Amino acid sequence: MTLQPDPSADTLTPAQYGVGARFTLSVYDDRYVAIILDALGAADASGLTVETGDISTFVAGGEADILRYLRDVIAHAAASGAHLSAGILLSRGCPGELQCELPPGVTAIGGAPVALEPTGVRARAHWSLYPLLDGHGGGEHMTGIYDAIRLAKDNGTFSGSDHFATRLDGDLADVLGTIASGWLMVGAHVQHVTTHATISINSPSRIAD
Amino acid sequence: MTLQPDPSADTLTPAQYGVGARFTLSVYDDRYVAIILDALGAADASGLTVETGDISTFVAGGEADILRYLRDVIAHAAASGAHLSAGILLSRGCPGELQCELPPGVTAIGGAPVALEPTGVRARAHWSLYPLLDGHGGGEHMTGIYDAIRLAKDNGTFSGSDHFATRLDGDLADVLGTIASGWLMVGAHVQHVTTHATISINSPSRIAD
Repeated sequence: MTLQPDPSADTLTPAQYGVGARFTLSVYDDRYVAIILDALGAADASGLTVETGDISTFVAGGEADILRYLRDVIAHAAASGAHLSAGILLSRGCPGELQCELPPGVTAIGGAPVALEPTGVRARAHWSLYPLLDGHGGGEHMTGIYDAIRLAKDNGTFSGSDHFATRLDGDLADVLGTIASGWLMVGAHVQHVTTHATISINSPSRIAD
Repeated sequence: MTLQPDPSADTLTPAQYGVGARFTLSVYDDRYVAIILDALGAADASGLTVETGDISTFVAGGEADILRYLRDVIAHAAASGAHLSAGILLSRGCPGELQCELPPGVTAIGGAPVALEPTGVRARAHWSLYPLLDGHGGGEHMTGIYDAIRLAKDNGTFSGSDHFATRLDGDLADVLGTIASGWLMVGAHVQHVTTHATISINSPSRIAD
Protein backbone atom coordinates (compact mmCIF):
# COMPACT_ATOMS: atom_id res chain seq x y z
CA MET A 1 0.00 0.00 0.00
CA THR A 2 1.84 3.11 -1.20
CA LEU A 3 -1.06 5.51 -0.73
CA GLN A 4 -0.34 8.08 1.95
CA PRO A 5 -3.58 10.00 2.43
CA ASP A 6 -3.57 13.24 4.34
CA PRO A 7 -5.04 12.37 7.73
CA SER A 8 -7.55 15.21 7.70
CA ALA A 9 -11.24 14.50 7.49
CA ASP A 10 -11.83 16.72 4.46
CA THR A 11 -9.59 14.74 2.13
CA LEU A 12 -10.65 11.21 3.06
CA THR A 13 -12.78 9.34 0.56
CA PRO A 14 -15.50 6.93 1.76
CA ALA A 15 -13.23 4.08 0.61
CA GLN A 16 -10.36 5.37 2.73
CA TYR A 17 -12.68 5.66 5.74
CA GLY A 18 -13.89 2.09 5.09
CA VAL A 19 -17.53 3.01 4.39
CA GLY A 20 -19.65 0.21 3.00
CA ALA A 21 -22.50 -2.24 3.28
CA ARG A 22 -23.04 -5.95 2.93
CA PHE A 23 -26.58 -7.23 2.41
CA THR A 24 -28.50 -10.42 1.70
CA LEU A 25 -31.87 -10.12 0.01
CA SER A 26 -34.01 -13.19 0.68
CA VAL A 27 -37.15 -13.74 -1.36
CA TYR A 28 -39.59 -16.38 -0.08
CA ASP A 29 -40.84 -17.34 -3.51
CA ASP A 30 -40.08 -19.78 -6.32
CA ARG A 31 -39.39 -16.77 -8.56
CA TYR A 32 -36.56 -15.58 -6.31
CA VAL A 33 -33.78 -15.64 -8.92
CA ALA A 34 -35.68 -13.37 -11.31
CA ILE A 35 -36.93 -11.07 -8.53
CA ILE A 36 -33.43 -10.61 -7.04
CA LEU A 37 -31.68 -10.13 -10.40
CA ASP A 38 -34.37 -7.67 -11.55
CA ALA A 39 -34.04 -5.69 -8.32
CA LEU A 40 -30.26 -5.54 -8.50
CA GLY A 41 -30.47 -4.51 -12.15
CA ALA A 42 -33.10 -1.83 -11.62
CA ALA A 43 -31.29 0.14 -8.92
CA ASP A 44 -28.93 2.97 -9.84
CA ALA A 45 -25.42 1.96 -8.79
CA SER A 46 -23.73 5.14 -10.10
CA GLY A 47 -20.71 6.04 -8.03
CA LEU A 48 -20.85 2.77 -6.10
CA THR A 49 -18.79 -0.40 -6.13
CA VAL A 50 -21.15 -3.38 -6.09
CA GLU A 51 -19.92 -6.99 -5.84
CA THR A 52 -22.51 -9.75 -5.63
CA GLY A 53 -21.44 -13.14 -4.27
CA ASP A 54 -23.24 -16.31 -3.28
CA ILE A 55 -23.76 -15.25 0.36
CA SER A 56 -24.16 -11.48 0.22
CA THR A 57 -23.63 -8.35 -1.86
CA PHE A 58 -20.96 -5.79 -0.99
CA VAL A 59 -21.60 -2.10 -1.69
CA ALA A 60 -19.04 0.68 -1.20
CA GLY A 61 -19.36 4.43 -1.73
CA GLY A 62 -20.76 7.43 0.08
CA GLU A 63 -23.30 6.73 2.82
CA ALA A 64 -26.25 8.48 1.14
CA ASP A 65 -25.59 6.73 -2.19
CA ILE A 66 -25.34 3.32 -0.50
CA LEU A 67 -28.63 3.86 1.31
CA ARG A 68 -30.45 5.03 -1.84
CA TYR A 69 -29.20 1.90 -3.59
CA LEU A 70 -30.40 -0.38 -0.77
CA ARG A 71 -33.79 1.38 -0.75
CA ASP A 72 -34.17 0.95 -4.50
CA VAL A 73 -33.12 -2.72 -4.59
CA ILE A 74 -35.38 -3.69 -1.70
CA ALA A 75 -38.36 -1.60 -2.87
CA HIS A 76 -38.11 -3.06 -6.36
CA ALA A 77 -38.10 -6.61 -4.99
CA ALA A 78 -41.00 -5.75 -2.66
CA ALA A 79 -43.09 -4.60 -5.64
CA SER A 80 -43.22 -8.26 -6.73
CA GLY A 81 -45.54 -8.85 -3.78
CA ALA A 82 -43.36 -11.68 -2.50
CA HIS A 83 -42.53 -11.95 1.17
CA LEU A 84 -38.90 -10.98 1.63
CA SER A 85 -36.32 -10.15 4.22
CA ALA A 86 -33.12 -8.16 3.89
CA GLY A 87 -30.17 -8.68 6.20
CA ILE A 88 -28.07 -5.52 6.16
CA LEU A 89 -24.64 -4.71 7.64
CA LEU A 90 -23.33 -1.14 7.47
CA SER A 91 -19.76 -0.36 8.52
CA ARG A 92 -17.59 2.77 8.62
CA GLY A 93 -14.23 3.60 10.12
CA CYS A 94 -12.16 0.54 9.35
CA PRO A 95 -10.45 -1.71 10.59
CA GLY A 96 -12.33 -4.33 8.72
CA GLU A 97 -10.62 -7.58 7.98
CA LEU A 98 -9.31 -6.43 4.59
CA GLN A 99 -6.63 -3.78 4.13
CA CYS A 100 -7.66 -0.44 5.60
CA GLU A 101 -6.38 2.81 4.16
CA LEU A 102 -7.24 4.82 7.25
CA PRO A 103 -4.07 6.58 8.42
CA PRO A 104 -3.09 7.00 12.06
CA GLY A 105 -4.23 10.29 13.51
CA VAL A 106 -7.72 10.23 12.06
CA THR A 107 -10.36 9.96 14.71
CA ALA A 108 -14.10 9.85 14.30
CA ILE A 109 -15.81 11.57 11.35
CA GLY A 110 -19.60 11.78 11.45
CA GLY A 111 -21.94 12.57 8.60
CA ALA A 112 -25.25 14.23 7.83
CA PRO A 113 -28.41 12.24 8.61
CA VAL A 114 -29.73 10.24 5.66
CA ALA A 115 -33.23 11.19 4.49
CA LEU A 116 -34.66 9.13 1.63
CA GLU A 117 -37.70 9.70 -0.56
CA PRO A 118 -40.56 7.46 0.63
CA THR A 119 -41.27 4.20 -1.18
CA GLY A 120 -44.82 3.36 -0.15
CA VAL A 121 -43.44 0.02 1.05
CA ARG A 122 -44.17 -0.87 4.68
CA ALA A 123 -41.12 -2.35 6.46
CA ARG A 124 -40.56 -3.80 9.91
CA ALA A 125 -37.04 -4.34 11.22
CA HIS A 126 -34.87 -5.54 14.08
CA TRP A 127 -31.94 -3.15 14.45
CA SER A 128 -28.66 -3.41 16.41
CA LEU A 129 -25.86 -0.82 16.58
CA TYR A 130 -22.24 -1.46 17.60
CA PRO A 131 -19.95 1.43 18.53
CA LEU A 132 -16.53 -0.29 18.76
CA LEU A 133 -15.03 2.15 21.22
CA ASP A 134 -12.08 0.38 22.80
CA GLY A 135 -12.05 3.20 25.35
CA HIS A 136 -10.90 5.78 22.79
CA GLY A 137 -12.36 9.13 23.81
CA GLY A 138 -13.84 7.68 26.98
CA GLY A 139 -17.50 6.84 27.40
CA GLU A 140 -19.17 3.50 26.84
CA HIS A 141 -20.97 1.97 23.92
CA MET A 142 -24.49 2.01 25.37
CA THR A 143 -24.53 5.84 25.33
CA GLY A 144 -24.48 5.98 21.54
CA ILE A 145 -27.01 3.14 21.32
CA TYR A 146 -29.47 5.01 23.55
CA ASP A 147 -28.94 8.18 21.47
CA ALA A 148 -29.82 6.23 18.33
CA ILE A 149 -32.94 4.74 19.94
CA ARG A 150 -34.02 8.26 20.89
CA LEU A 151 -33.60 9.27 17.25
CA ALA A 152 -35.97 6.45 16.24
CA LYS A 153 -38.49 7.53 18.87
CA ASP A 154 -38.30 11.15 17.73
CA ASN A 155 -38.85 10.34 14.04
CA GLY A 156 -41.67 7.85 14.65
CA THR A 157 -40.03 4.65 13.40
CA PHE A 158 -39.48 3.16 16.89
CA SER A 159 -41.82 0.20 17.44
CA GLY A 160 -40.45 -1.46 20.58
CA SER A 161 -37.50 -2.90 22.45
CA ASP A 162 -36.66 -6.58 22.10
CA HIS A 163 -33.71 -8.61 23.32
CA PHE A 164 -30.56 -7.52 21.43
CA ALA A 165 -32.50 -5.37 18.96
CA THR A 166 -34.77 -2.37 18.56
CA ARG A 167 -37.92 -2.86 16.50
CA LEU A 168 -38.57 -0.30 13.77
CA ASP A 169 -41.74 0.09 11.69
CA GLY A 170 -42.56 2.47 8.87
CA ASP A 171 -41.95 3.26 5.24
CA LEU A 172 -38.87 1.37 4.04
CA ALA A 173 -37.17 4.72 3.35
CA ASP A 174 -37.74 5.92 6.92
CA VAL A 175 -36.60 2.63 8.44
CA LEU A 176 -33.39 2.68 6.37
CA GLY A 177 -32.94 6.37 7.13
CA THR A 178 -33.16 5.75 10.87
CA ILE A 179 -30.66 2.89 10.71
CA ALA A 180 -28.19 4.97 8.69
CA SER A 181 -28.68 8.18 10.64
CA GLY A 182 -28.17 6.46 14.01
CA TRP A 183 -25.01 4.82 12.63
CA LEU A 184 -23.69 8.17 11.34
CA MET A 185 -24.64 10.00 14.55
CA VAL A 186 -22.62 7.59 16.69
CA GLY A 187 -19.90 7.72 14.05
CA ALA A 188 -19.26 11.36 14.93
CA HIS A 189 -17.77 10.16 18.24
CA VAL A 190 -16.59 6.61 17.49
CA GLN A 191 -14.39 5.76 14.51
CA HIS A 192 -15.36 2.13 13.92
CA VAL A 193 -19.14 1.70 14.05
CA THR A 194 -21.16 -1.12 12.52
CA THR A 195 -24.89 -1.68 12.47
CA HIS A 196 -27.00 -4.71 11.55
CA ALA A 197 -30.66 -4.87 10.63
CA THR A 198 -33.09 -7.52 9.47
CA ILE A 199 -35.92 -5.94 7.49
CA SER A 200 -39.14 -7.87 6.83
CA ILE A 201 -41.59 -6.91 4.07
CA ASN A 202 -44.87 -8.43 2.84
CA SER A 203 -44.93 -10.90 5.74
CA PRO A 204 -48.12 -12.96 6.02
CA SER A 205 -47.61 -13.07 9.80
CA ARG A 206 -47.16 -9.33 10.10
CA ILE A 207 -48.75 -7.98 13.23
CA ALA A 208 -51.86 -5.96 12.36
CA ASP A 209 -51.68 -2.20 12.78
CA MET B 1 -36.53 -6.11 39.44
CA THR B 2 -36.08 -7.50 42.95
CA LEU B 3 -33.64 -10.25 42.02
CA GLN B 4 -30.22 -9.73 43.58
CA PRO B 5 -27.97 -12.39 42.08
CA ASP B 6 -24.65 -13.18 43.69
CA PRO B 7 -22.06 -11.51 41.47
CA SER B 8 -19.86 -14.58 41.17
CA ALA B 9 -19.54 -16.40 37.91
CA ASP B 10 -20.55 -19.80 39.30
CA THR B 11 -24.01 -18.74 40.33
CA LEU B 12 -25.02 -16.80 37.24
CA THR B 13 -27.57 -18.38 34.94
CA PRO B 14 -27.36 -17.85 31.17
CA ALA B 15 -30.41 -15.57 31.49
CA GLN B 16 -28.66 -13.45 34.12
CA TYR B 17 -25.60 -13.19 31.88
CA GLY B 18 -27.85 -12.19 28.97
CA VAL B 19 -27.04 -15.19 26.76
CA GLY B 20 -29.25 -15.58 23.72
CA ALA B 21 -29.76 -15.61 19.99
CA ARG B 22 -32.03 -13.98 17.46
CA PHE B 23 -32.35 -15.54 14.03
CA THR B 24 -34.29 -15.18 10.80
CA LEU B 25 -34.69 -18.27 8.61
CA SER B 26 -35.41 -17.29 5.01
CA VAL B 27 -36.63 -19.97 2.59
CA TYR B 28 -36.55 -19.07 -1.11
CA ASP B 29 -39.53 -21.24 -2.00
CA ASP B 30 -43.30 -21.01 -2.29
CA ARG B 31 -43.52 -23.68 0.43
CA TYR B 32 -41.71 -21.45 2.94
CA VAL B 33 -44.45 -21.35 5.60
CA ALA B 34 -44.61 -25.15 5.88
CA ILE B 35 -40.83 -25.55 5.70
CA ILE B 36 -40.19 -22.97 8.45
CA LEU B 37 -42.98 -24.21 10.74
CA ASP B 38 -41.87 -27.84 10.29
CA ALA B 39 -38.26 -26.93 11.07
CA LEU B 40 -39.19 -24.97 14.20
CA GLY B 41 -41.44 -27.82 15.31
CA ALA B 42 -38.89 -30.57 14.70
CA ALA B 43 -36.05 -29.10 16.77
CA ASP B 44 -35.71 -29.94 20.46
CA ALA B 45 -36.27 -26.75 22.44
CA SER B 46 -35.87 -28.39 25.86
CA GLY B 47 -34.41 -25.98 28.37
CA LEU B 48 -34.72 -23.04 25.99
CA THR B 49 -37.02 -20.05 25.79
CA VAL B 50 -38.14 -19.63 22.18
CA GLU B 51 -40.27 -16.70 21.01
CA THR B 52 -41.09 -16.45 17.31
CA GLY B 53 -42.17 -13.08 15.93
CA ASP B 54 -42.78 -11.68 12.48
CA ILE B 55 -39.18 -10.47 11.99
CA SER B 56 -37.05 -12.96 13.89
CA THR B 57 -37.04 -15.70 16.51
CA PHE B 58 -35.51 -15.16 19.96
CA VAL B 59 -33.82 -18.08 21.73
CA ALA B 60 -32.44 -17.96 25.28
CA GLY B 61 -30.66 -20.63 27.32
CA GLY B 62 -27.20 -22.12 27.60
CA GLU B 63 -24.87 -21.54 24.67
CA ALA B 64 -24.52 -25.22 23.66
CA ASP B 65 -28.30 -25.76 23.82
CA ILE B 66 -28.95 -22.66 21.70
CA LEU B 67 -26.47 -23.80 19.07
CA ARG B 68 -27.87 -27.34 18.93
CA TYR B 69 -31.32 -25.83 18.42
CA LEU B 70 -30.11 -23.55 15.62
CA ARG B 71 -28.33 -26.48 13.94
CA ASP B 72 -31.45 -28.63 14.11
CA VAL B 73 -33.84 -25.95 12.83
CA ILE B 74 -31.60 -24.99 9.92
CA ALA B 75 -30.65 -28.58 9.00
CA HIS B 76 -34.30 -29.63 9.01
CA ALA B 77 -35.23 -26.77 6.69
CA ALA B 78 -32.24 -27.55 4.46
CA ALA B 79 -33.47 -31.13 4.05
CA SER B 80 -36.38 -29.73 2.02
CA GLY B 81 -33.85 -29.00 -0.71
CA ALA B 82 -34.95 -25.37 -0.89
CA HIS B 83 -32.37 -22.59 -1.09
CA LEU B 84 -32.31 -20.84 2.26
CA SER B 85 -30.36 -18.32 4.29
CA ALA B 86 -30.22 -17.86 8.03
CA GLY B 87 -29.36 -14.53 9.61
CA ILE B 88 -28.08 -15.20 13.13
CA LEU B 89 -27.24 -12.86 16.02
CA LEU B 90 -25.64 -14.29 19.18
CA SER B 91 -25.18 -12.10 22.26
CA ARG B 92 -23.83 -12.61 25.77
CA GLY B 93 -22.94 -10.31 28.62
CA CYS B 94 -25.75 -7.80 28.61
CA PRO B 95 -26.42 -4.78 28.40
CA GLY B 96 -28.97 -5.43 25.74
CA GLU B 97 -31.80 -3.02 25.36
CA LEU B 98 -34.12 -4.92 27.70
CA GLN B 99 -33.60 -5.17 31.47
CA CYS B 100 -30.31 -6.86 32.31
CA GLU B 101 -29.89 -8.84 35.51
CA LEU B 102 -26.11 -8.70 35.40
CA PRO B 103 -24.92 -7.25 38.70
CA PRO B 104 -22.02 -4.83 39.02
CA GLY B 105 -18.76 -6.54 39.78
CA VAL B 106 -19.14 -9.34 37.26
CA THR B 107 -16.58 -9.15 34.53
CA ALA B 108 -16.11 -11.46 31.56
CA ILE B 109 -17.07 -15.14 31.80
CA GLY B 110 -16.00 -17.37 28.92
CA GLY B 111 -17.28 -20.81 28.07
CA ALA B 112 -16.20 -24.10 26.55
CA PRO B 113 -15.97 -24.29 22.74
CA VAL B 114 -19.14 -25.59 21.09
CA ALA B 115 -18.72 -28.82 19.10
CA LEU B 116 -21.83 -30.10 17.31
CA GLU B 117 -22.53 -33.43 15.66
CA PRO B 118 -22.22 -33.07 11.87
CA THR B 119 -25.35 -32.64 9.76
CA GLY B 120 -24.21 -33.57 6.26
CA VAL B 121 -25.46 -30.14 5.18
CA ARG B 122 -22.94 -27.91 3.40
CA ALA B 123 -23.07 -24.31 4.61
CA ARG B 124 -21.29 -21.12 3.56
CA ALA B 125 -21.36 -18.04 5.77
CA HIS B 126 -20.28 -14.45 6.23
CA TRP B 127 -19.31 -13.93 9.87
CA SER B 128 -18.65 -10.79 11.93
CA LEU B 129 -17.68 -10.60 15.62
CA TYR B 130 -18.06 -7.57 17.90
CA PRO B 131 -16.20 -7.42 21.23
CA LEU B 132 -17.78 -4.35 22.89
CA LEU B 133 -14.80 -3.48 25.04
CA ASP B 134 -15.20 0.16 26.04
CA GLY B 135 -11.59 -0.01 27.20
CA HIS B 136 -12.41 -2.33 30.10
CA GLY B 137 -9.40 -4.53 30.70
CA GLY B 138 -7.36 -2.65 28.10
CA GLY B 139 -6.70 -4.05 24.64
CA GLU B 140 -8.63 -3.35 21.48
CA HIS B 141 -11.40 -5.19 19.71
CA MET B 142 -9.41 -6.36 16.68
CA THR B 143 -7.27 -8.62 18.89
CA GLY B 144 -10.21 -10.88 19.72
CA ILE B 145 -11.42 -10.81 16.13
CA TYR B 146 -8.03 -12.00 14.85
CA ASP B 147 -7.99 -14.75 17.50
CA ALA B 148 -11.38 -15.95 16.26
CA ILE B 149 -10.25 -15.91 12.63
CA ARG B 150 -7.24 -18.01 13.64
CA LEU B 151 -9.64 -20.49 15.26
CA ALA B 152 -11.50 -20.79 11.94
CA LYS B 153 -8.23 -21.32 10.07
CA ASP B 154 -7.14 -23.99 12.56
CA ASN B 155 -10.38 -25.96 12.35
CA GLY B 156 -10.68 -25.77 8.55
CA THR B 157 -13.86 -23.69 8.24
CA PHE B 158 -12.05 -20.49 7.12
CA SER B 159 -12.77 -19.78 3.46
CA GLY B 160 -11.56 -16.21 2.96
CA SER B 161 -11.57 -12.61 4.11
CA ASP B 162 -14.11 -10.19 2.68
CA HIS B 163 -14.97 -6.63 3.60
CA PHE B 164 -16.58 -6.57 7.08
CA ALA B 165 -16.86 -10.36 7.29
CA THR B 166 -14.96 -13.62 7.31
CA ARG B 167 -16.14 -16.34 4.92
CA LEU B 168 -16.70 -19.78 6.42
CA ASP B 169 -17.40 -23.00 4.53
CA GLY B 170 -18.10 -26.49 5.82
CA ASP B 171 -20.66 -28.73 7.46
CA LEU B 172 -23.38 -26.57 9.00
CA ALA B 173 -22.40 -27.97 12.42
CA ASP B 174 -18.77 -26.91 12.01
CA VAL B 175 -19.71 -23.46 10.71
CA LEU B 176 -22.05 -22.87 13.66
CA GLY B 177 -19.44 -24.33 16.02
CA THR B 178 -16.79 -21.90 14.77
CA ILE B 179 -19.12 -18.91 15.11
CA ALA B 180 -20.09 -19.90 18.66
CA SER B 181 -16.61 -20.91 19.77
CA GLY B 182 -15.06 -17.65 18.54
CA TRP B 183 -17.78 -15.71 20.35
CA LEU B 184 -17.19 -17.66 23.58
CA MET B 185 -13.41 -17.39 23.29
CA VAL B 186 -13.55 -13.59 23.06
CA GLY B 187 -16.18 -13.65 25.80
CA ALA B 188 -13.56 -14.90 28.25
CA HIS B 189 -11.97 -11.44 28.10
CA VAL B 190 -14.84 -9.13 27.10
CA GLN B 191 -18.18 -9.13 28.91
CA HIS B 192 -20.49 -7.89 26.15
CA VAL B 193 -19.78 -9.73 22.89
CA THR B 194 -22.13 -10.12 19.94
CA THR B 195 -21.63 -11.96 16.67
CA HIS B 196 -23.60 -11.92 13.41
CA ALA B 197 -23.58 -14.46 10.61
CA THR B 198 -25.45 -14.96 7.37
CA ILE B 199 -25.48 -18.64 6.42
CA SER B 200 -26.36 -19.73 2.88
CA ILE B 201 -27.44 -23.29 2.03
CA ASN B 202 -28.53 -25.00 -1.21
CA SER B 203 -27.62 -21.92 -3.24
CA PRO B 204 -27.85 -22.40 -7.01
CA SER B 205 -25.04 -19.84 -7.40
CA ARG B 206 -22.76 -21.56 -4.93
CA ILE B 207 -19.16 -21.42 -6.00
CA ALA B 208 -17.98 -24.86 -7.07
CA ASP B 209 -15.54 -26.69 -4.78
